[in-house]
Amino acid sequence: MKFVRFGPRGAEKPGVLDAEGGIRDLSGLIGDLAGPVLENLDALAGMNVAALPKVAGTPRLGPPVAGTGKFICIGLNYADHAAESGLAVPSEPVIFMKATSAICGPNDPIVIPRGSEKTDWEVELAVIIGKPAKYVSEAEALSHVAGYAITNDVSERAFQIEREGQWTKGKSCDNYGQIGPWLVTPDEAGDPQDLKMWLKVNGETKQDGSSATMVYGVAHLISYLSQFMTLQPGDVISTGTPPGVGMGQTPPQYLKAGDVVELGIEGLGSQRQEVVADA
Amino acid sequence: MKFVRFGPRGAEKPGVLDAEGGIRDLSGLIGDLAGPVLENLDALAGMNVAALPKVAGTPRLGPPVAGTGKFICIGLNYADHAAESGLAVPSEPVIFMKATSAICGPNDPIVIPRGSEKTDWEVELAVIIGKPAKYVSEAEALSHVAGYAITNDVSERAFQIEREGQWTKGKSCDNYGQIGPWLVTPDEAGDPQDLKMWLKVNGETKQDGSSATMVYGVAHLISYLSQFMTLQPGDVISTGTPPGVGMGQTPPQYLKAGDVVELGIEGLGSQRQEVVADA
Repeated sequence: MKFVRFGPRGAEKPGVLDAEGGIRDLSGLIGDLAGPVLENLDALAGMNVAALPKVAGTPRLGPPVAGTGKFICIGLNYADHAAESGLAVPSEPVIFMKATSAICGPNDPIVIPRGSEKTDWEVELAVIIGKPAKYVSEAEALSHVAGYAITNDVSERAFQIEREGQWTKGKSCDNYGQIGPWLVTPDEAGDPQDLKMWLKVNGETKQDGSSATMVYGVAHLISYLSQFMTLQPGDVISTGTPPGVGMGQTPPQYLKAGDVVELGIEGLGSQRQEVVADA
Repeated sequence: MKFVRFGPRGAEKPGVLDAEGGIRDLSGLIGDLAGPVLENLDALAGMNVAALPKVAGTPRLGPPVAGTGKFICIGLNYADHAAESGLAVPSEPVIFMKATSAICGPNDPIVIPRGSEKTDWEVELAVIIGKPAKYVSEAEALSHVAGYAITNDVSERAFQIEREGQWTKGKSCDNYGQIGPWLVTPDEAGDPQDLKMWLKVNGETKQDGSSATMVYGVAHLISYLSQFMTLQPGDVISTGTPPGVGMGQTPPQYLKAGDVVELGIEGLGSQRQEVVADA
């Protein structure tokens, strides 16, 4: 199943894609795609999608998950990206957080905050947690996944690296966390460690990788994180980016107003963002 | 006014202290102490507290704020604490995040996670945001505050410092973020830069400081953070700790099961936590 949330920001409704790729309205059947609903997505597998109300037109899409308590990111999780950042592959996963207020829909604009000159892109595979996870083993980890999605882990490199430590400062700006278009359930997403992923800026390919080259895979990450904290339904884990970010270009290239960023992951759809400067 | 949330974990009700310090039930008057309610706390200033239902006994207290989207911490914000950590005072505020899943009530136990040997304490002044803040000036910053509370920014120093970077890993364990007992409105809290604060372990004073020695004050922090991200009602900013943490003792001292931690801030009440080991 491919779930979406559609409608104006802050007033999205849950939906599901039908056989033709159209959106069907789920709001009569379930609450929002949050907490308890995410814990029980399996129960919807037998529903008659064709009998649900069709959604007209092409509404805005929001993030395909609501009520996210933690937006956890994994740093330097592709060896080639660590190299382009001038950093060693870490001996265990590097964890940082993005503010949940950075979360927006997959095609919402990238907003360059005041004072920013180094806004950068990062296509990432996002894991959306379905069932609470604490001290879970790697073997049982994937049973806690509600689905997968694309994230653009937008990053301000000066805020992240040059403005006194902890990366969160450069990762948490408003509209720095596009998620979607879909929450794709594991049965449809396929092997999370074998998905092609790409990102283009103004039509030019910048990132062209595969989740096959992750240093720490999804099952390991869920197990690892759950040793430190309880993962809750709706939590999002963005699992790191392959090479090709702006900071790694020669010379470095950062986003400016008017740029268009497109990104996608095999089986998970694609995103398209216009870059705008904050007022 | 001093607001509380009382009752079992996950099912707390809002309350307010009466003239005798007893709890009055606010659940018939307002929703939870979250989002819109926090934006409009001023509207409750004229209520007849004595006419509200008395709450019997001494119920458990939860955190005095619900729906926290961001649990933001400021690192090394007291010069003496930076010195005891062997680090320089930063040239601008250091920001990191605690997981919101770490939040618990003021007297809930400190839970030592599996594999932890360096669980430490940090008494901090917490700022609870009442009104959205984006690009606000230092002059207008305090008008965005709903109230103040005590936080224990419990920290696992090995997870934080010795396990591949980004501090969030050592800051986000379950029950590592006691908040409360009260949300004290600004008119009652007094000058946030002149509050005595203290912490004892097993009756022995470990921290004995004052918010007067903060490097970056509350107004500056709100203004600063709002340049990077929108602060939302219910967001909590924990503003750093004065000297006297376990890591800074000679030799270093960390918490073990059976220890009792007590901490308080002038005008904001006190907390008491038993330390337990996770199963």
